Amino acid sequence: VVVGSEILLDGRADTNGPWIESVLARAGIPCILRLVVGDGRDDIADAIRTAARRAPIVIVSGGLGPTFDDLTREAASDALGRALSRDASLEARMRERYHGRGLDPPGSVYRMADVITGAEPLRNRVGSAPGQLLAGPPLVALLPGVPAELEAMLEEELLPRILALHPVEPAGRLVFKISGMYESEVESAISPGMAEWNGIASTILASPGEVTLFLRARGASHDEMLRAAAGVRKALGEAIFAETDESIAAAVGRLLDEARLTLATAESCTGGMLGSMITSVPGSSRWYRGGAVAYANGIKRRWLGVPAGMLLRQGAVSGETAARMARGARRRAGTDLALAVTGIAGPDGGTPSKPVGTVFVALASSRGDSVRSLRLPGNREMIRLRSCRAALDLLRRTLLEIPSRGAA
Amino acid sequence: VVVGSEILLDGRADTNGPWIESVLARAGIPCILRLVVGDGRDDIADAIRTAARRAPIVIVSGGLGPTFDDLTREAASDALGRALSRDASLEARMRERYHGRGLDPPGSVYRMADVITGAEPLRNRVGSAPGQLLAGPPLVALLPGVPAELEAMLEEELLPRILALHPVEPAGRLVFKISGMYESEVESAISPGMAEWNGIASTILASPGEVTLFLRARGASHDEMLRAAAGVRKALGEAIFAETDESIAAAVGRLLDEARLTLATAESCTGGMLGSMITSVPGSSRWYRGGAVAYANGIKRRWLGVPAGMLLRQGAVSGETAARMARGARRRAGTDLALAVTGIAGPDGGTPSKPVGTVFVALASSRGDSVRSLRLPGNREMIRLRSCRAALDLLRRTLLEIPSRGAA
Repeated sequence: VVVGSEILLDGRADTNGPWIESVLARAGIPCILRLVVGDGRDDIADAIRTAARRAPIVIVSGGLGPTFDDLTREAASDALGRALSRDASLEARMRERYHGRGLDPPGSVYRMADVITGAEPLRNRVGSAPGQLLAGPPLVALLPGVPAELEAMLEEELLPRILALHPVEPAGRLVFKISGMYESEVESAISPGMAEWNGIASTILASPGEVTLFLRARGASHDEMLRAAAGVRKALGEAIFAETDESIAAAVGRLLDEARLTLATAESCTGGMLGSMITSVPGSSRWYRGGAVAYANGIKRRWLGVPAGMLLRQGAVSGETAARMARGARRRAGTDLALAVTGIAGPDGGTPSKPVGTVFVALASSRGDSVRSLRLPGNREMIRLRSCRAALDLLRRTLLEIPSRGAA
Repeated sequence: VVVGSEILLDGRADTNGPWIESVLARAGIPCILRLVVGDGRDDIADAIRTAARRAPIVIVSGGLGPTFDDLTREAASDALGRALSRDASLEARMRERYHGRGLDPPGSVYRMADVITGAEPLRNRVGSAPGQLLAGPPLVALLPGVPAELEAMLEEELLPRILALHPVEPAGRLVFKISGMYESEVESAISPGMAEWNGIASTILASPGEVTLFLRARGASHDEMLRAAAGVRKALGEAIFAETDESIAAAVGRLLDEARLTLATAESCTGGMLGSMITSVPGSSRWYRGGAVAYANGIKRRWLGVPAGMLLRQGAVSGETAARMARGARRRAGTDLALAVTGIAGPDGGTPSKPVGTVFVALASSRGDSVRSLRLPGNREMIRLRSCRAALDLLRRTLLEIPSRGAA
């Protein structure tokens, strides 16, 4: 149960719900229902009742602060038919903390010390509002809505207690991240093996330029899960870039790091998104030097040495230009490798011979260039994202065959 | 009601729910509850019942396809106590479409022609599964889960029908997007005026480097909303960069376009994110030329002309280096303006004098440089995003005072 009027009224994506579900799913606990409600006491109480009718574990996030519209404690008390009472030791600790900082807050602040009868307070390492856990059944936990507070409390305080009360099987969930294959190709590749899986549920998710395959034990033993995983690895081969939640940029970074190779980029239509994805990985300065955002043709010429005649004849969106951009970035940045992207992301700029979605990615290395020509579906941002992931996949597949620098 | 096991089990953000809510909110219809459920027939039916007890309008998304796990039609029939029957004309049109493409699908495909008694089929311009609308009360609509199909059907087919059945007030919702102020500063600035608002609810949302203020009529007249809007404009002044959902990159692009000025970028810690934000705006090639991702110091020296001695003495993260990066990018790209960012995004690399979150942004123009020194909170991605938005805000505020190129 996710509490917060702002989530419902303003079209914001609720990130707490998916986050809680992913942490629990990784721990082997599937979530069956998410309710997102406003700040009203009756609305929250009703949501908690609905959730408790359906599931043995109910996690509520939000509405634990000190202001008048923080009503989750009262609502949970209503829903569970258990009184609230002020916890004297929590209150004393809060008072000390405030006085220690020279503050004398209004008395309403101590509402945060109101605890449901029978519930255990949960420590908030990051903020001031404590959480609460009623062991149940149903197990009901109240957690803060501020993401940093929620995350610390769920992982450090609540999850260990849930797992003690509700033990789950290991290897309950496997994840395979796949690049360079369409969703339908992944499905056909694994479907012969799937026929032999017993008690394993699979889900295939596609996001632009990336497919994720999840296997979940639904009665399957640990050994059966491991056999299914081996079958998936055989069917998909090197299209699998990770068996964790790792991004393709992180997977490529790991390969570059191991091979002690350095990388530069040259981007036209992606305008810096490729560099941004690469540098979102902590430690990327070990393998990434930088690059050029060559959005205008003048920059492609002057910064990357793409000949004016090539831009005129083949056009800025061509395999030749992509290769020259990559070579120029590699030479001018002095790196082992360079990736380049040029294309038409739309919504304007398409022609009959080069429609929106026409993209070329190129990789320059000491062994020469390789270029991929792509025709990508989706809107502007999807085309840009697919282009970046295709470039990283080209590099990844090349690295899987390149000997390391030390060995070369 | 959002249907789909994959959303709950794999920690994916549900984007359909927020999207539906934002479209309705913009049309003046607030959403009070979102339920996310798996694919089970009973689960979906129960969710529809719960929603219909709470609200006069229930929108269900997902589970309308032809496969065995698409059970929303059956579940809605259960929940509403209304039988399903095959619509002969829908079935005939589907058969024509398939045969026209030379396909002879399995009979189960025609389950998509099963309609709830009393419901009107809704056209699916993008895909094959029709939607359904039961006028009610409660009004219950079944829409597809594929985002492109959902979006077309909601905006083109369903929303006009809902507004005909449930007319709403104009100016029911106002939005102000604000940069360069913290959430608490926005709150203090508008709170004196808020005392005079009658029947207007406000929500303040903060995302990294950006604050959004929403006003919603809750009984207020059109004139009262306009007076409140005028008060907000007076209190926040040029901190407001848009009164629509426009991004700050789009707002800056509009100003550059009007002033006929061109821009380049030089990025260190943001690694291309600033260029990516700028080029996410369609038409950005009119004002943006490109830039350097100068992640390594060697690139800062060779591509941007930052002196080695400055990097040694002041360090790569300093106001001097930021200014030199901006000047270098402006000169080498031949643009009117250039923005630069350098900083420590973490998690590593902080020192006592320059902790994680220390960031410098600089703007170079024909009038010289301006530099802002920032100490930004959050994790690596939040610091990077805040840095980009701070750079764009520096440019925006400068442009609001710079005469246009034509006039200069």
